[in-house]
Amino acid sequence: MSRMAGKQSVMFDRPVEILSHACVAGKKEGEGPLGKKMDVIVEDPKFGKGNWEEGESQFLKTACEIAMRKGGRKKEEVRMAFCGDLLGQMIASSFGIKDLGIPYYGVYGACSSAGAALALAAMAVEGGFADTALAACSSHFGSAEKEFRFPLGYGNQRPYSATWTVTGAGAFLLGSRPETRRREEAQKDGKKEAGRRAEPAKKKKRKVKIRGIVTGKIKDYGTADPFHMGASMAPAAADTIYQALEDFGRVAEDFDCIATGDLGTVGRELLLDLLKKNQVDVRKNHVDCGMEIYSTKEQDAHAGGSGCACSALVLSSLLLPRLESGEWKRILFVPTGALLSQVSANEGRTIPAIAHGIWLEQEGEEECM
Amino acid sequence: MSRMAGKQSVMFDRPVEILSHACVAGKKEGEGPLGKKMDVIVEDPKFGKGNWEEGESQFLKTACEIAMRKGGRKKEEVRMAFCGDLLGQMIASSFGIKDLGIPYYGVYGACSSAGAALALAAMAVEGGFADTALAACSSHFGSAEKEFRFPLGYGNQRPYSATWTVTGAGAFLLGSRPETRRREEAQKDGKKEAGRRAEPAKKKKRKVKIRGIVTGKIKDYGTADPFHMGASMAPAAADTIYQALEDFGRVAEDFDCIATGDLGTVGRELLLDLLKKNQVDVRKNHVDCGMEIYSTKEQDAHAGGSGCACSALVLSSLLLPRLESGEWKRILFVPTGALLSQVSANEGRTIPAIAHGIWLEQEGEEECM
Repeated sequence: MSRMAGKQSVMFDRPVEILSHACVAGKKEGEGPLGKKMDVIVEDPKFGKGNWEEGESQFLKTACEIAMRKGGRKKEEVRMAFCGDLLGQMIASSFGIKDLGIPYYGVYGACSSAGAALALAAMAVEGGFADTALAACSSHFGSAEKEFRFPLGYGNQRPYSATWTVTGAGAFLLGSRPETRRREEAQKDGKKEAGRRAEPAKKKKRKVKIRGIVTGKIKDYGTADPFHMGASMAPAAADTIYQALEDFGRVAEDFDCIATGDLGTVGRELLLDLLKKNQVDVRKNHVDCGMEIYSTKEQDAHAGGSGCACSALVLSSLLLPRLESGEWKRILFVPTGALLSQVSANEGRTIPAIAHGIWLEQEGEEECM
Repeated sequence: MSRMAGKQSVMFDRPVEILSHACVAGKKEGEGPLGKKMDVIVEDPKFGKGNWEEGESQFLKTACEIAMRKGGRKKEEVRMAFCGDLLGQMIASSFGIKDLGIPYYGVYGACSSAGAALALAAMAVEGGFADTALAACSSHFGSAEKEFRFPLGYGNQRPYSATWTVTGAGAFLLGSRPETRRREEAQKDGKKEAGRRAEPAKKKKRKVKIRGIVTGKIKDYGTADPFHMGASMAPAAADTIYQALEDFGRVAEDFDCIATGDLGTVGRELLLDLLKKNQVDVRKNHVDCGMEIYSTKEQDAHAGGSGCACSALVLSSLLLPRLESGEWKRILFVPTGALLSQVSANEGRTIPAIAHGIWLEQEGEEECM
């Protein structure tokens, strides 16, 4: 049986494995420091489609397809998909996933959607409701600016606190352990055959599991500037990180890395301050995905990257590979989302925010703790 | 352990109880045939707030508060909330739930959101991830017309295939059985005391459980008319109903009622036809929530009601009471959603749709089957 941990967390008795993952990036993201680690870089912002929104759906669909291929799963074998994006009525997700024919739940947490999708997919797998589940999300600079800010042709100036919405999509295939074992046995036979074709021996990757989740609460400190979303999201991130440590009975140093989604340079400082006031110091092991995806100065990305794809791409291209290589043993992944809309912004309302936490760990780590 | 049923369903080994539910309706809904069964009718479309969107959030918040009060739960005792609405970036839900401070996941399935929220909340409870979970959703005629169609002041004519977005919100509090038993024991003591105050004896309500769920697949038959959404949604509803019967090994007659969300008069005929082509006849036990909420002719609602609140209000005011009274034993609740947005409609794209299925049953029924 699974169990509730502390006030708002879940600790899985049978941790859920990340069977595979994929990251499909746009041109600017491909030119950034993580570019070489992306599965695919797509130069055309419309991805061969008629407009940005259709292009974004294509990013999502492609990421899902690559993750399934890497994980050795056909779409018919995936029991549930949890997807999210930033567009009104989540059209990027629904148009992206529809042709795959996978039973589907739309999940919304703004830029924290990767966390919400991973948490829900992990619960579905660990609860025995799905043997294989897909968590995916996308964002797109063009479609997001159109949705939230100004027409691109207007050429407005952006303050330095503003972030740049990442174009791309990340997808994560989760599976339960017994299922994985069965699959691996089946693959062994296949591998023997591959061996005959003299493929080069690959360095063994460690498996990564989701060991627990923290469902975020909405925090609203009254900020209302859509060009300074790091300030809206920092309190939500601080709350989730603090609660994760409380609920899991851990200290910050237990995690090799605590990775927030897209606070950016300004939001990061607020996060560190807020946590320090509560006697939690994450300065040494904190990473913000928004500050990793671009060379912010050279690429003119101001405070950093943002969008659902920001944390998803960094998770797939940077964080998970470090766990898989053995460099890191345990991380807390905390994507952050600002829950505004064009309408709420025009009505002069505040920007509430949320952050979900995902405890990721190398396989076997729990035994040695 | 829970188990996967058939291709895309879940059958719970320990069915999840609906501890309580609440329906808060707008003026027009209060004037309809179910008006007397609503918990609250709010005449002011802004619910005392500054605009429709804030009003809608207030509907949602109020429904959640009533459900928690009826279920004898404080907000601190609710482990997770799953909410959805029709507005861009789901501001009705996030602004509605934020002051309650409940850990939260945004769920999007357009007008099928009640089904998605109930399914996810039920999985959270049955998996042991939450002892109490809240599923809620809202919609609003004013905010929806603004979001999807024309400014109300423009006074456009609506074709007879168009539906009327329901103003209101429904909330459902789900709990696990052992937790319920503990609670009931605690309540027994309280009841004795109430007895001393000579309260009138109430007719005993039967408990209703969620016994299984069907996660919907997106269906797109290529329709693109936002004034005829019944046509877009009928194939999704037919698919989910057909799959539910297959996965659960049932025939349509096993259910006292199969209730779709908001197909309306036109969509209903399409549904019946589609199912008949697959040798499934639901004509006798089919109900469409959109056709129940208004006296369509007298209230000028054309094809019927729609919106997330349509199926939620009808579930809380009509369907669950019939299960609780013993009139019905078993129903299949199938809210339907059209996954369009203003942007996708303006781009001339089709309207994909989805429907999720919830198998609801009187307590004790499973033993007699």
